[in-house]
Amino acid sequence: MDLFEAVAQRHSYRAGFRDNPVPREDLVKIVQAGIQAPSGCNAQTTTFVIVDDPAGIAALADIVGKQVVAEAKAVIVCVVHHRPVYQDKSFAVEDCSAAVENMLLAITALGYATVWLDGVLRAESRAAKIAELLGVPDDLEVRIVLPIGVPAEKWQQANKAPFEHRAWFGRYGESGK
Amino acid sequence: MDLFEAVAQRHSYRAGFRDNPVPREDLVKIVQAGIQAPSGCNAQTTTFVIVDDPAGIAALADIVGKQVVAEAKAVIVCVVHHRPVYQDKSFAVEDCSAAVENMLLAITALGYATVWLDGVLRAESRAAKIAELLGVPDDLEVRIVLPIGVPAEKWQQANKAPFEHRAWFGRYGESGK
Repeated sequence: MDLFEAVAQRHSYRAGFRDNPVPREDLVKIVQAGIQAPSGCNAQTTTFVIVDDPAGIAALADIVGKQVVAEAKAVIVCVVHHRPVYQDKSFAVEDCSAAVENMLLAITALGYATVWLDGVLRAESRAAKIAELLGVPDDLEVRIVLPIGVPAEKWQQANKAPFEHRAWFGRYGESGK
Repeated sequence: MDLFEAVAQRHSYRAGFRDNPVPREDLVKIVQAGIQAPSGCNAQTTTFVIVDDPAGIAALADIVGKQVVAEAKAVIVCVVHHRPVYQDKSFAVEDCSAAVENMLLAITALGYATVWLDGVLRAESRAAKIAELLGVPDDLEVRIVLPIGVPAEKWQQANKAPFEHRAWFGRYGESGK
């Protein structure tokens, strides 16, 4: 799929999935796109656990408490390492977000759908519970979860404010388009 | 360009640019890709100032102190709003990073090169100086700068650790590929 088409078609999906499995070949392609994302000082602070067995998905869904996880045919769990890589700065959140965006586009291009689950993991120790479930070392944080499958419904990208409300040439808030 | 090709070809570029300008039509396409990135609760917390006049670029280069900015034919300045959008949580860094990743891929697909400049802005008040230069309101933060042009040299993506060092099926650190 053309890059710009993938960017336009990518959307958050929170409904049901068809029974079609997500083959490991596709999961590797998706995660490889995440691996190829940039990271601060190329420190590659994001790692990934891919869960595609029904029992593992059910256990994740129990923790996250979202139907879209329960219905997923695979789940990519993104794990970050908050170590400083440039002076005292960590870019772990930036690194993980860039990797996730690459994966969202790859998921779209391959005909699947997903949603970026993030804030929900930071309540009720959900991230820590997922870390324990998957054997994630204590010095790492489970940050983002992507439930994946072939969408049963057709959703589309949320409305975005038009260009002239979010971007300007030359000076903030001045229209030069 | 195919999405997976763009992901594979994207790289950080810190050398010189050819004299070719970056037409505004292309800059709009690039920033529009950023606008179409996801954001937490679709709050769209990232905004963009595009600088493509030589005096503006020179002023930015003076602040950032990087030759790649001085040589750029256009610079996209990414501005974030750290307001909470989900309970007490802000996703401004995630939102901006996803937008930047979309733009890096768009820049690649259109035949340009760039580098994600980030940590350097957080030293010596550089972000604040850029904000003042561009009239960015006080409650917003200049976070990431992308200098853009047609690359004069051929660079490639930094080496990435192989899949089996960064991803696992079923459980952290266990190989199931």
